[in-house]
Amino acid sequence: MTEAPAPQRTDPTHEEIFTGHLGGKLSVELAAPLDTQRDLSIAYTPGVAEVSRAIAADATLTKRYTWTDRLVVVVSDGSAVLGLGDIGPRASLPVMEGKSALFKKFAGLNSIPIVLDTKDPDEIVETLIRLRPSFGAVNLEDISAPRCFDIERRVIEALDCPVMHDDQHGTAIVVLAALKGAARVLGRSVEPLKVVISGAGAAGVACANILLAAGVSDVVVLDSKGIIGHTRTDLNDVKIELAGRTNPRGLAGGAAEAFAGADVFVGLSAGKVPEELIAAMAPDAIVFALSNPDPEIDPDVAHRYAAIVATGRSDYPNQINNVLAFPGVFKGALDAGARRITERMKIAAADAILSVVADELAVDKIVPSPLDPRVATAVAEAVAASV
Amino acid sequence: MTEAPAPQRTDPTHEEIFTGHLGGKLSVELAAPLDTQRDLSIAYTPGVAEVSRAIAADATLTKRYTWTDRLVVVVSDGSAVLGLGDIGPRASLPVMEGKSALFKKFAGLNSIPIVLDTKDPDEIVETLIRLRPSFGAVNLEDISAPRCFDIERRVIEALDCPVMHDDQHGTAIVVLAALKGAARVLGRSVEPLKVVISGAGAAGVACANILLAAGVSDVVVLDSKGIIGHTRTDLNDVKIELAGRTNPRGLAGGAAEAFAGADVFVGLSAGKVPEELIAAMAPDAIVFALSNPDPEIDPDVAHRYAAIVATGRSDYPNQINNVLAFPGVFKGALDAGARRITERMKIAAADAILSVVADELAVDKIVPSPLDPRVATAVAEAVAASV
Repeated sequence: MTEAPAPQRTDPTHEEIFTGHLGGKLSVELAAPLDTQRDLSIAYTPGVAEVSRAIAADATLTKRYTWTDRLVVVVSDGSAVLGLGDIGPRASLPVMEGKSALFKKFAGLNSIPIVLDTKDPDEIVETLIRLRPSFGAVNLEDISAPRCFDIERRVIEALDCPVMHDDQHGTAIVVLAALKGAARVLGRSVEPLKVVISGAGAAGVACANILLAAGVSDVVVLDSKGIIGHTRTDLNDVKIELAGRTNPRGLAGGAAEAFAGADVFVGLSAGKVPEELIAAMAPDAIVFALSNPDPEIDPDVAHRYAAIVATGRSDYPNQINNVLAFPGVFKGALDAGARRITERMKIAAADAILSVVADELAVDKIVPSPLDPRVATAVAEAVAASV
Repeated sequence: MTEAPAPQRTDPTHEEIFTGHLGGKLSVELAAPLDTQRDLSIAYTPGVAEVSRAIAADATLTKRYTWTDRLVVVVSDGSAVLGLGDIGPRASLPVMEGKSALFKKFAGLNSIPIVLDTKDPDEIVETLIRLRPSFGAVNLEDISAPRCFDIERRVIEALDCPVMHDDQHGTAIVVLAALKGAARVLGRSVEPLKVVISGAGAAGVACANILLAAGVSDVVVLDSKGIIGHTRTDLNDVKIELAGRTNPRGLAGGAAEAFAGADVFVGLSAGKVPEELIAAMAPDAIVFALSNPDPEIDPDVAHRYAAIVATGRSDYPNQINNVLAFPGVFKGALDAGARRITERMKIAAADAILSVVADELAVDKIVPSPLDPRVATAVAEAVAASV
C-alpha cells in the first residue's frame, strides 16, 4: 500500500488560542429590547407579575414563558477532562463553555456550563435535583469512570428531563455512525464484524453497548490489564457486567490476542498501539484511532494496513467528533418533550448522521464534517421521531 | 394644595405581556464565531486543552479565560416574589430572567437565573458553595424574611466573591439616594429627619440600617403589630436587634403614634396607609409609597399633604427602582475584584445615583429615571473606588 499524503497542518498558534478565550466564549443577551419604559413594564415590573402568577397557577406554563425549556446545562466536576484527567472544575470551564457554544451554534439551544466543586456522586445528584427548575436538560460531561455510570443512572432516575453523559453516548453514537459508514464503503454489513475496543472508561463501555444494541455480536474490550473476560479476577462491577455481554469467543490475554484477525479497532484509551498490532488485523481493516490530540497510532502508518482510518482530529479526514451527535440529540429530545434519551433514539441519531452523507460516502468520508449544518437537523428529526 | 395631574396610564395589555415572555427573555450567544474548522480548533478541541492546562496550573487564570468572572447568578427559592409571596422557584423565573436581562442591559454583565427547589437555608448555602466555580458573583433575590438575613450572611461568609441580597440592599441604596435627593430639593439635611419605615422585612430592615449608617438618627420601624421597640415581647432576633438601634424616642403603639410629626414615610410593607396618617405628618413631608403595583397611599392623595411623593411605579414621577443600584453595584465590585460588598460601597452607590441628577433635581425628579444610561457607570465607578 502507498502512504496517503499527510493533510497540511495549520494548527492555531498558542497566542491565537489564548486570545480566542479572553473573557470566555459565551454571552447572555436579551431576547427582546429593553429600551423604553414600556419594555421595562412588560419584561419586568409590573408586567412580569402577571406571568409569574400564571405559572404559579399552572406550572406547565413554565415551558412556554421561560427560557428553561430550551436550556441545556453542561455539568462537570472536572474529573476527566479531555485527555487531561482530573484537572478540577475551574480548569474544565473552557471545555464546558465550548460545549455550550456548540449547542447554540448547531442546535440553536441555549446552554450554560455548571461546574461543581464536589466529586461526591451523592452531592452531584442532589445538587442537580435542587437546580432542576433552572433548566430543561442535562449534558453530563467529563466525569470520570466508573463514577460516571452511577451518576448518570441516578440523575436520569431523579430528573423528569433529558439527561445524557456525552462522553459515553455522544461518542458511541458517532462511532456507530462511522462504523456503519465504513462498512457501507467496504460493501460489508456491521453485524459480523469483529470489533476490538481499547478503553473500558465512559466512551469504551458506551461504544460496546451501542454496537451490541446495533447487532454487532463480536465485541472485545481491552483495559490497561488486557482483555475483559470471565477469567479476570480484578474487574469492577461495570467491567464484570461488560464481560458478560462481550468477548463471545472467550479470549484471554492482551492486545496481541485481541487484535489478531480483528476487523475493527476503536481506540478510546489514550494509549499507544504499535504498528505490528494493526498489521495483524484482518484484511480491509477499519481503524478508529480516536485519542485526542494524539491518536493511538499515526494515521499514515495505519493506512499501510487498514482500508479505512478515522481519528478525532480535525486535520485528518474522517473526523469522529461528538459534535455530530449531541446538539441534535438534545434538540430532538426537547422538541419532542421527551423525558428520557433512549437506546432507540441513540441508534436513530447514528443512522441520521450517516444519512446526511449517504450519497457522498468514500474511504475518506465515512461521516459528515463536524461543521456540516445539515447534521443537527437530521439528528433532531430522527430522535424526535423515535420518542 | 392642589392635586397634581395624574400621569397618563399606558399599561401594557395582558397579551403584550405574555407575548413578551414567550420562550423566555434570555439567550446565550457565542462571543466569537464558530464557522470554520480553525474556529473549532481554537474554541474547542484540540486548542481548548491548552487553556484548560494553563488554568489547572494557575487557577487565577480562570478570571481571564472564562466567562465566570463577569457572570452574576440571580439566585432565588421563589419564597417572596414581588408582592406575590411564596409562589415557588418556577413561577419566580420570569422575574429572575428580567433581572438577568437588566444586568446585561445596564452593566454589560452576563447573568443567569438559578432557581432552587429547596427553601432550606442549609441546602441553599451548600448548593451555592458547590456551584462556586461556575460564577463570579451572587445576587440573592426574592427570598423571604427573616430567612434571607441568615442566608445572606452565611453565603457572604462562605464565598470569596461579591454577594448581595438585592431586596435588602438594592432597595436601601435607592431609598437613601432618593431621600438625599428629596432633602436637597427641600433645602434640608437628612440627619435630623424623623423617618417612619413600614415593613420589617428584607427591604425595611436594610433601609433602616443604611439610613442609620448615613447619619439619620431618628428611624422608627413598623411591622404588622405596631412600632418595633423595647416594650414589644413578640419580636424575632432580627427585630430585637433592630429595636436596639432604632426608635430613639422610645415610641410605643401603632401607625398613629409613628406618623405623628414624622418628616419621612418609607412604605415597604404592601399595606395601606389611610389619608389621615399622611395628614398628621410634619409640614413639607416626604412620602415614599413603594409597594408595587399598588402604593400604600394614592400618590395624588399623598400630594395634598406631602411636599415630595415617590413610588415604585413607572407611570408616576420619582420612580424608586432597584435597577438604579444593582447593575452598577455588581459591575463596580467585579471591576475592582472586590470580595465583599461593604456598607461603604452601598453609601457610595447612593451618592453616585444622586450625582447623576444633581443639576436637575426637582420635586418631581429626586432620582434619575430607571432607564438613564449614566447611572450604572457612575455607580460602578463609585463602588469600585470605595473598595
